[in-house]
Amino acid sequence: MNDAVSIAKAIRKGEVTALEVTQAALARIAAQDAELNCFTAVTEETALADAARIDREIAAGNEPGLLAGVPFAVKNLFDVAGLTTLAGAKINAENPPASADATAVAKLKQAGAVLVGTLNMDEYAYGFVTENSHYGVTRNPHDLQLVAGGSSGGSAAAVAAGLVPLTLGSDTNGSIRVPAALCGVYGFKPTYGRLSRAGVALFSSSFDHIGPFARSVADIATIFDILQGEDDRDPICTKRPVNLTLPQLHQDISHIRIAVADDYFQKGATLEALAAVQQVADALNVTNYVTLPEAHRARAAAFVITASEGANLHLDKLRTRPQDFDPATRDRFLAGALIPSSWYIQAQRFRRWYRDRISEVFQNVDIILAPTTPIPAPLIGQQTMILDGEEILVRPHLGLFTQPLSFIGLPVLSLPIQRPNNLPLGVQLIAAPYNEALILQVAAILEAKGVVSCG
Amino acid sequence: MNDAVSIAKAIRKGEVTALEVTQAALARIAAQDAELNCFTAVTEETALADAARIDREIAAGNEPGLLAGVPFAVKNLFDVAGLTTLAGAKINAENPPASADATAVAKLKQAGAVLVGTLNMDEYAYGFVTENSHYGVTRNPHDLQLVAGGSSGGSAAAVAAGLVPLTLGSDTNGSIRVPAALCGVYGFKPTYGRLSRAGVALFSSSFDHIGPFARSVADIATIFDILQGEDDRDPICTKRPVNLTLPQLHQDISHIRIAVADDYFQKGATLEALAAVQQVADALNVTNYVTLPEAHRARAAAFVITASEGANLHLDKLRTRPQDFDPATRDRFLAGALIPSSWYIQAQRFRRWYRDRISEVFQNVDIILAPTTPIPAPLIGQQTMILDGEEILVRPHLGLFTQPLSFIGLPVLSLPIQRPNNLPLGVQLIAAPYNEALILQVAAILEAKGVVSCG
Repeated sequence: MNDAVSIAKAIRKGEVTALEVTQAALARIAAQDAELNCFTAVTEETALADAARIDREIAAGNEPGLLAGVPFAVKNLFDVAGLTTLAGAKINAENPPASADATAVAKLKQAGAVLVGTLNMDEYAYGFVTENSHYGVTRNPHDLQLVAGGSSGGSAAAVAAGLVPLTLGSDTNGSIRVPAALCGVYGFKPTYGRLSRAGVALFSSSFDHIGPFARSVADIATIFDILQGEDDRDPICTKRPVNLTLPQLHQDISHIRIAVADDYFQKGATLEALAAVQQVADALNVTNYVTLPEAHRARAAAFVITASEGANLHLDKLRTRPQDFDPATRDRFLAGALIPSSWYIQAQRFRRWYRDRISEVFQNVDIILAPTTPIPAPLIGQQTMILDGEEILVRPHLGLFTQPLSFIGLPVLSLPIQRPNNLPLGVQLIAAPYNEALILQVAAILEAKGVVSCG
Repeated sequence: MNDAVSIAKAIRKGEVTALEVTQAALARIAAQDAELNCFTAVTEETALADAARIDREIAAGNEPGLLAGVPFAVKNLFDVAGLTTLAGAKINAENPPASADATAVAKLKQAGAVLVGTLNMDEYAYGFVTENSHYGVTRNPHDLQLVAGGSSGGSAAAVAAGLVPLTLGSDTNGSIRVPAALCGVYGFKPTYGRLSRAGVALFSSSFDHIGPFARSVADIATIFDILQGEDDRDPICTKRPVNLTLPQLHQDISHIRIAVADDYFQKGATLEALAAVQQVADALNVTNYVTLPEAHRARAAAFVITASEGANLHLDKLRTRPQDFDPATRDRFLAGALIPSSWYIQAQRFRRWYRDRISEVFQNVDIILAPTTPIPAPLIGQQTMILDGEEILVRPHLGLFTQPLSFIGLPVLSLPIQRPNNLPLGVQLIAAPYNEALILQVAAILEAKGVVSCG
């Protein structure tokens, strides 16, 4: 399928109407989603009305917005006015409908994009598989027996299956990057605090990011530019530098210092995950390596803080109605509720230390390459995998390479690597805080060379 | 005994030498401290040398500093070059001597004050009684059977007994104010972050303050002015506004809005503690009351955070050599090590809420009056007391009225109330952050009226 930017261009040129594009998206959802289970709600009525309105705007010669007529959908933890925000939970289904759109949803609508529905996820965003006991499992479009990854599984699979060209998800420990990798699409997690989280159900506030899934680098760059900027409704967001100019893609990148992450980011990966990273490194003529010190401790600390903050957020419901949680989520929250405060304090102290060390690493390098996941998509229901000669649980360990990065809010793009007769994999492009532009420039070159694509 | 400012004046005028003043202080310590047990180290040699040097400076016509020749001593958690910083702990006695003075010690020395020793405290500053199992109990100069309060018990008792006119202590949950009240001297805890803690052994970093004990408001104001200001060695301190001009004391205070704290701050107090507050209110013609909302929760949250952070700080030693802790401290740290992280996170969340509410309270009032402790000094070894009809433990509850204030770093001065044929009590003057000047102005009026004094 075409990317969002191309669709918007075609609509603007009058080659197709927004209504036709939206009807086609709704038809694909109707035909395929019973099997894939990406969507938890389809907003057919408002989508058709919005599309018709955009067609009228274009006919009237008004500026319809950068993404005019492009269908999109959002993980069901984003507020959509008139819908109850599920956050993947049965308990939240009892809440009243949201009274206003999340800021990110409002910004995309303002740019002319047409919301067609909300997407499946792990309960309360706590998981890497989107095997949701209340709303079902989201299947991987590359093989329906496989998971789509999580927690933004519906968001990744909907783009991979071509149901819509653009979705939003959230990433606390890897929840955008992991499903993007397993489904073979672009998934972007900008710097912590860069995109407004107003109207987004939180999981662990000091880790939660939002970001887009799409089928091209131009789309990712365009959506990032639309979404970034101050927001009075989000106190975290307003404190950050804003108004980055969208980088001109396809510039010369010879000045950008790139290296491959070694040590921790190589030990736990399968050979095929390492080969994917090598493929990207070769295309960029990268031969340097760089070490992120104590990455294993960063991951451990991320676990401790996330579990503690998540448990605290849901403590009241864990006490009064534990039976209404997804069993997989409940166990993790309960464990989080038992973590000693001393561990939490220690993890926060380590976090400051680690941020300073990584800041030093970025004195000598601009972009770091690492695998997104250690393995391609596992089977639905698969409990364990073998890594580095050890049998370990699949669910928590899919975030092996994503957690040490979101821990300190670094911007990361997961690139889709298509492998003939094999499942897709992801490679992370990692930069220092606020250096999204460098990531997008490198990604554009790789896309132009055909090294990365959504197939 | 005279206050520090008067002593400095007499030395400057040549009425007495710094050496004579220092020798007299050392003689008092030698005569009385075996019984009182305020000092854990007496720095006789360096004190005599420093005093002689100051006398030479004066003789040479050089500016000797605002506190030239005034003997002082510090709680033994302040670094003093050449001495091991005990922090009241047996374990710390194994540490090498400090290589440099704490910033506060250095500043007082720079102002000409003469350090004569270090003072007893509860182990790791965790307690309100200074019944230290390693270094003995510090006795209350008003009655040797009574505690001096804590954790800065040695600092308060040394001033109350007239061994030295000026000492430094630290206050996490009330450790300056409680012993000041029980010993009948001034104890001042400025706004969080206002005085440098560089070279001070911490207990719970987000709560720890340092501050002075003295015998007059002029002394407190002078010392505060000497100590405040930026310090590159303390990252907390340098972020705060500095260079407050020492207020001209004895100004008209009719513009200052004063009220008595009701509700929580009246329920738990004995009648005599309330009478002390009333005495101050009457002298100021104050008839207004003000409520600090949810003060009991503020205290509970302060307990949770302090215990958690303190336990984390000492976790390694708690694991490897618990037998070397003071039993009273060990039990509290071990309890802190078992607090769930969810409680800690909840307490921090409440803290932000409470800070906002108290900030609203200070829209309508400038100075708030409250008791410092619910009772006068209890007996050494006394386990329980009766408050509000309930028998409760003495040790933790001496901080009943101090904890909800240090919880959010408010500046507080504990005023000494002398009661004929009775033990002294304390009344807290509480202001909004950075409003130390208002506190000192009100205190100066009360001192001039004879309502408060060190007897």
